[in-house]
Formats: sequence, C-alpha cells, structure tokens
Amino acid sequence: MADSGETLAAGPRVVVLHNAEVVTMDAESRVLLGGAVVVSGDRVEAIGASPQILADFAHLAHEVVDLRGRVVLPGFVNTHVHTSQQLGRGIADDVDLMTWLHERIWPYESHMTPEDSYLSTLLCGIELIHSGVTCFAEAGGQYVSEMARAVELLGLRACLTQSTMDSGEGLPPNWSSHSTDYCIQSQKELYEKHHNTADGRIRIWFGIRQIMNATDRLLLETRDITQELKTGIHMHIAEIPYENQLIVNTKGVEHGTVTYLEKLGFLRSNLLAAHSVWLNDAEIGFFSGAGVKVSHCPASAMRMLGFAPIKEMLENGVCVSLGTDGAPSNNRMSIVDEMYLASLINKGRESYITGTTNPTAIPAETVLKMATINGAETVLWDNEIGSLEVGKKADMIVVNPFSWSMVPLHDCISSLVYCMRTENIESVMCNGKWIMKDQKILNINEEEVIPLAVKAAGDLLKRAGISLPKRMNYV
Amino acid sequence: MADSGETLAAGPRVVVLHNAEVVTMDAESRVLLGGAVVVSGDRVEAIGASPQILADFAHLAHEVVDLRGRVVLPGFVNTHVHTSQQLGRGIADDVDLMTWLHERIWPYESHMTPEDSYLSTLLCGIELIHSGVTCFAEAGGQYVSEMARAVELLGLRACLTQSTMDSGEGLPPNWSSHSTDYCIQSQKELYEKHHNTADGRIRIWFGIRQIMNATDRLLLETRDITQELKTGIHMHIAEIPYENQLIVNTKGVEHGTVTYLEKLGFLRSNLLAAHSVWLNDAEIGFFSGAGVKVSHCPASAMRMLGFAPIKEMLENGVCVSLGTDGAPSNNRMSIVDEMYLASLINKGRESYITGTTNPTAIPAETVLKMATINGAETVLWDNEIGSLEVGKKADMIVVNPFSWSMVPLHDCISSLVYCMRTENIESVMCNGKWIMKDQKILNINEEEVIPLAVKAAGDLLKRAGISLPKRMNYV
Repeated sequence: MADSGETLAAGPRVVVLHNAEVVTMDAESRVLLGGAVVVSGDRVEAIGASPQILADFAHLAHEVVDLRGRVVLPGFVNTHVHTSQQLGRGIADDVDLMTWLHERIWPYESHMTPEDSYLSTLLCGIELIHSGVTCFAEAGGQYVSEMARAVELLGLRACLTQSTMDSGEGLPPNWSSHSTDYCIQSQKELYEKHHNTADGRIRIWFGIRQIMNATDRLLLETRDITQELKTGIHMHIAEIPYENQLIVNTKGVEHGTVTYLEKLGFLRSNLLAAHSVWLNDAEIGFFSGAGVKVSHCPASAMRMLGFAPIKEMLENGVCVSLGTDGAPSNNRMSIVDEMYLASLINKGRESYITGTTNPTAIPAETVLKMATINGAETVLWDNEIGSLEVGKKADMIVVNPFSWSMVPLHDCISSLVYCMRTENIESVMCNGKWIMKDQKILNINEEEVIPLAVKAAGDLLKRAGISLPKRMNYV
Repeated sequence: MADSGETLAAGPRVVVLHNAEVVTMDAESRVLLGGAVVVSGDRVEAIGASPQILADFAHLAHEVVDLRGRVVLPGFVNTHVHTSQQLGRGIADDVDLMTWLHERIWPYESHMTPEDSYLSTLLCGIELIHSGVTCFAEAGGQYVSEMARAVELLGLRACLTQSTMDSGEGLPPNWSSHSTDYCIQSQKELYEKHHNTADGRIRIWFGIRQIMNATDRLLLETRDITQELKTGIHMHIAEIPYENQLIVNTKGVEHGTVTYLEKLGFLRSNLLAAHSVWLNDAEIGFFSGAGVKVSHCPASAMRMLGFAPIKEMLENGVCVSLGTDGAPSNNRMSIVDEMYLASLINKGRESYITGTTNPTAIPAETVLKMATINGAETVLWDNEIGSLEVGKKADMIVVNPFSWSMVPLHDCISSLVYCMRTENIESVMCNGKWIMKDQKILNINEEEVIPLAVKAAGDLLKRAGISLPKRMNYV
C-alpha cells in the first residue's frame, strides 16, 4: 500500500480501496465483487464498482490501494472484554471457579495499579487489532482513565466501563465495595471527563459487575442516569446456576436474575447483558421484549459457564453479538476464533436437545452478523458502525484470503468464519485512519510495549502473592 | 538460524539447538529451561543443559542455533486427517449430514483424479506443517500412491490408508464398493510398494471406511493381515447415533458398533478408532481392554457428531489423541486449534452431566500429551516419535511464545494449549531435517502449489456438478 505522494488541496484525507470483495454487512447483505470503498476523513464517502469509483475519486485521493481481490469487511466489534485482565493471562487455567475468583482474579485485580491497567489495555489492544477488532466494550475495570489513555493512543473505538459494586460478600479487604452514591457519582465524573473524547472514539458506559454485587438502588439509579445521559449499561447476567439459585432463594422469584431484573423494571434496550447462559424461555422473552442485547462469549462459556441458548435468543429476536471475555477466562482474545467457536459450539449444543448435533444451526452469515452489525447494535452504535455504508464511520479490515489457511475459497463467506485466522487479517482502519497495515500496528511499537507489560505482569503477580503450581517436571 | 558454513568430516549432519525451553513430553514430563537438543542424522543424539551440550557438541555441529528462550516441543501428531479432502474445503458448510454426504462429499471424492489427490495432499500438508504437525494418519483416500508422492516431497511422516469399502448402499454409480478380495489385495500391494519408504517416513495402514461399508469377512481378514504385517487399521467408529441403531437393528447386539466389533473379535491394539463419539461405559471398557486407540476430532465432532466421552476414556486408560478430520468437516486443519478446542469442549461437556462445566477437566498437560506422545502411540510409532528423547527420531517444532498472542507466560504449558496459534510456530523438523524454517516451507514452493490446487479444486467441483447456494446478495 503506497501513498500517492501528491499534494492535494486541504480538506479531509481521502483513501480509495479498490479491486476488493467488499462484504458490506448492510441490511441487504450486499457483497461487491471488484468493489471499492472511498474514505473521506473519518467517514465512508462512497462504495461501488471499482472502475466507476476510480474514475470519480482516484484524482481526489491521498492514497489509492489496489487490494488485488482481498476481502474488505466492517471492523469486528468485541462486545465483552476485560482489557485490564490481559496481564493475568494464564493465571487461572484448569482451576475450579472458586479458586479462579478468590485465589487468582480478585488478588490480581485488587493489586493492580493504574499503570498496570494502562499497560494491560495496551497489550490487549494489540491483540484486538491483530484480530480485526475496531470497537470493543470494556467489561468493567477499575481505572477507566488509564484505559481511555490506552485506547486513545491505539486508535481504537471503545465503550469503557468502570467495574462497579455497592454490595457483596467475600471481596478482598483492600478492595471492598463502595457506597451507591459513590458508584453513581464516580461514573458520572468519568462520563463528563471522557465521554465522546478521542475524536469521538471513546464513550463511557455505566457498569454493574453482577447481581450479587448490586443493590436495587444501584440498579435503578443506573437505569435512570443512563437513560438521561443516553448511554449504556454493561452487566454480567445469569452466568452460573448458583447465581440464579441465589436470586430464587433471596428474592423469591421463580427463575433467577433475569426474572428478577424484569420484575424490578431494570431491563431496557441500553442494557448489554454479558454471557446470559442460564435463561429459560420466559427470560428470553423478557430480553426480547425490552430490547436487551447479549454478548455471547463462546470460549469462556464453554470453559466456565455452560451453553447459552443462542439459537433460541436469535429466533426470538434478541440481538446477540460476540465477546472474548478476559484473558484468564479464554485465553485467546480473538473474535476471529470466537466466530469459529460460536458456529461449532451452537451446532454441537443441539445434540443435548435433539440427540444429534445440528450442522445447520447458526450458519456462517449469522455468525458474521454477530461479529459486526449485531456488535454495533449491542454497543448502541449501529447508526455509525457495524456495516460498510455511505455516511458511516470508516471502521474496516482487509483480509487476505489467498493463503494456505483459507484456500480454496468455494464459499467465501463461510471461509471467513470457519477458516480465517488472525494471520489472514492484514490491515485495520478505525475512524478513517489505518491502525494496522500489513500486520504492523501503527500507533505504538509492539516490541516496546510487550516487555513492559510482561515485566508489570510479573511484578503484579508477586505483589498479589499469586503463585502457580508447576504442571511438569522442570529440571 | 544460520549455518556455520564449516566443512566437517563426513557422517551424519549434526544440528545443535540451544538456549531453549525443551518440553520433552517424556515419561517423567521433563522440561529443560536453558536446554539444548542435539540432532545427528535423523535421530536425537543428546538432550541437556545448554552449556554442557555446547561444550560437548558445538565443535561437531554443522548448524548451531541459539533459540533465545523459544520452546522446543515434539512435533504434533494428527491422527485423523483426510488429506484428499483439502480441495473441498468449504463445499459442505452449514448443511445437514445427508446433504453433506450425498450432494457434496461423495460427488467430490468420486470425481477426484490422482493428480487432484496429489495436489490436495500437498495443500493439506502445507497447512499441517504450519500447524506444527510432523506426522499424520491419513483417514483413507483413493489414491494412496499420490499421497505418498506428496508426503515424500513435503518431508512429513505419515501412515497412509486406502479408503476401503466392500459393501454399502447409496454410493455414487461411478464409485461402487469393491470385492473383499480386491480390498485386501490392493492394500497388500500398496503395502509392498510404499511401506517404509521415504527414508522410513511412510507406513502403509489398512483402512475400513466404516461398519456400514464393511462385511464381517473384510473386518476379520483385515485384522489378520495387519497382525501378520505388523501394521495398523484406521476406521471411523461410532460416529452418529444412527450408525449404532442400525447395528442394533441388523446385528442384534445391545449397543452399536463397538459392542458388535468386540463380539466379532475385531478389536485389537493396532486399531485406530476415529471419532468414537457414541460409546457407552461397557464399550469404553472394550476399547480399554483391547488397547484400541482413539482419535478425538473436537471441531468435527462439535459440528457433525456430538460430544465424545473423552474424560471417561482417559480415566479408563484408553489412549486418546487428536485429529483434525477433513477440511469439509472442520475447516481448519490445525492441531493447534484442536488442542484449544479439546480443552474447552471437554470442560463444557461436563455441564450436561453435572449441571455445571468443569474447568478442571482435561487440563493443559493432558491435552499436550494427546497431541504428542498419545498421538505417537495411536499411530503405533511411540518407540520412535512423540517425545524428545535420546535415540528417538528428530521430529520437533520451535515455538516463539514471546508475541502478543501468548504473553505474559505465567503458565507456559497452559499457554501452549490455550494461547498458541499457528503463527507462533516458527520452524518444524521431521526426521532430522528442517521442513519449515521461520515459517517458510522448505521442500515446496507454497506460492506455486496454491494456485495449482485452487485451479484443480474449481475444476473438480465443476466435474462433480457441485454448486453452492450464495449466502449473501452479490452485486
């Protein structure tokens, strides 16, 4: 990809990508063979057949790129990722949930410094970009300003959320919950400080860690303030059977968290419900009726939570998107891999319902929607991202499908879901600017960040007193 | 990695790899930090601490490589792969099993030429090598001599098998089953022609496609001839509930294929049973008692077959290894991804038994065994491959764990299973010779093979009359 080098009149930078297979993910699912996309500033200016686009725009462009048949897709949206857990990848593999939480994750998170959080988000961001993500929803961390600093630098788009708890037993002593007032006030301050910053790439959402760490007052005030500020709520919901049982026992509802939240009047269309594995049919109906969005995290669910009723949610009109969860739960932070998993797992899950797997369940085109336009809808940003359309923000990726990992391309759309690996993702543009080109991250130096992050991760584990048993016989 | 360039006395080529984390996968699960491996000809000559090895061997070596902390592992063994299906990747995604078989796979396979088979195995081999595989078990194809030609060229190690059927309804007219005598005789000829060729890298096994395409006589004669020739049998077993039900109905046994094969006296320790998803406890006992080996193909099972009782098999002493199956069933031909999946899926499967997933099930070290030493045992070659030990064949891979996809390495062994991607696999050695170095395949030119294979794949689909519905709106 070479710059034309010409000096053009002042005005927004114009980039023309041509000779591509443009998979728009628009409402008509249009795919342009021999297509082209024109970017002007941070927006898509035109989409069309290459010859016409070149005739109309090549002379205006600062950069003209011949993609030689490569695939252009909207950038992927990762709707549930704990960027501040990236330094903890590998600290909690193959352990039960209580060990995971009490002996690994809580000590890790509670000993984290703001600088750790910054490096963790940088490191995670590197992986997100290599995996074709242009926008993510932070699942909730402690140092939102540090996340914002990292996101601004990386050039990504993000909905950042504070990990928010105003009640809950068993938290580490150095990390107790806050008052409801503090929870609301601190998030309002973050909103005022960071919302709509970084050229509009950063939005601030409100967080609820989970039902067991939230009073009714926090839930309702969060609902109301987010309606007023026109932003979203990010909350882990119905993750494990124990959570539902606890709610049944303590709140006297029939079936768990979603039923309780419905009864409370908390469910709104600005709610992003992460995981949502243990829902019954009535609860799927509550989500559908209220317009709640779901982040399905296939790897994390398989490992820790269970099989979410994704097919049923989609059939009932619930908007389902994809998330990676955090590094200690997955451990690959790759929406590319989550697409592959989402298809496989939801085909396999049918064997427990009908006795055989259903290879037709959740087809490739549905998975691709989950990773793009559904992701945009989940983060309440589908008016500007999630598909390649004139007037939308220029968030897109270039995929090289001609390598050994994808050929032959008898069915290009399914190959993007079932064959593509991160190594097929060549270039990534966010908000009209390249943030990765030919697999090189542009805004930071990976080789400088990685050793800093590794050092910080080692120090953090020492401070937190986390030591892992050896799996093999080191000699 | 630079050659020393010195001229040394005649004799086997000596390579010293030092300054590595050597994960031996030997019986004591030894891992050497700052370790070194000496290769002499096709064998491992020594393993030890880098300083001592350098002092003893550096002056004798033709090549000395400082791995700067990288991980050295035994090459992975892919114990079930249809190399001749590689040209059909993407032809049968998201369709039901009958469509998959009758409208896609059978037309594809029955229209394949020997040259197609050669190109298909070459293309598949490229993916296998990039994924760290040094040895594979072919699941059964039509043109074994063409596979052997490709394997010899690629430098891989393989157990090749003819797809063998002496009965069966519904096969395409141009592809009917053969007589029992022909089945046995043709395989004996292949054995005589190719067994132990390519510097001993190629072995010929006997195939049984599946119970529904095999007479009792074929089963028993195959059992006897393979005992006599000291080779193995590769057979798809207990793939779907329908198969078991058919055997119950037609053979009058209690529970399906494995019960019937036990009753027939077919089960022996040289049997490689692919998939084996639908086994009850008694049948797991039959496998264990006879020493039958199982190839677990997680992706393919999730998509098409169901959840195999892997935990129960391992607990009962069955040797379980990993396979990718064929490209139209998966579609990634990567043992690296199968390791990740094997862990996730078998953790998730527990939720249908106990009500919650079991994150401790099938831990990383077990998965790593499945991909290495269990794989070697499955292909009856563990006396020479599957672990890094003095005297064994030099089949090994070099992993760079320092990139964004794997850091931080708090738990290196689990990171090899849960984080590693094909892009972390830098170099591959088989039988003492580098077959990939710094991600470049050495024995063939990828860029020449890929267009030839893509062309052949397109022509094959036309000949076979396979056309795929469009998933999106191409304009």
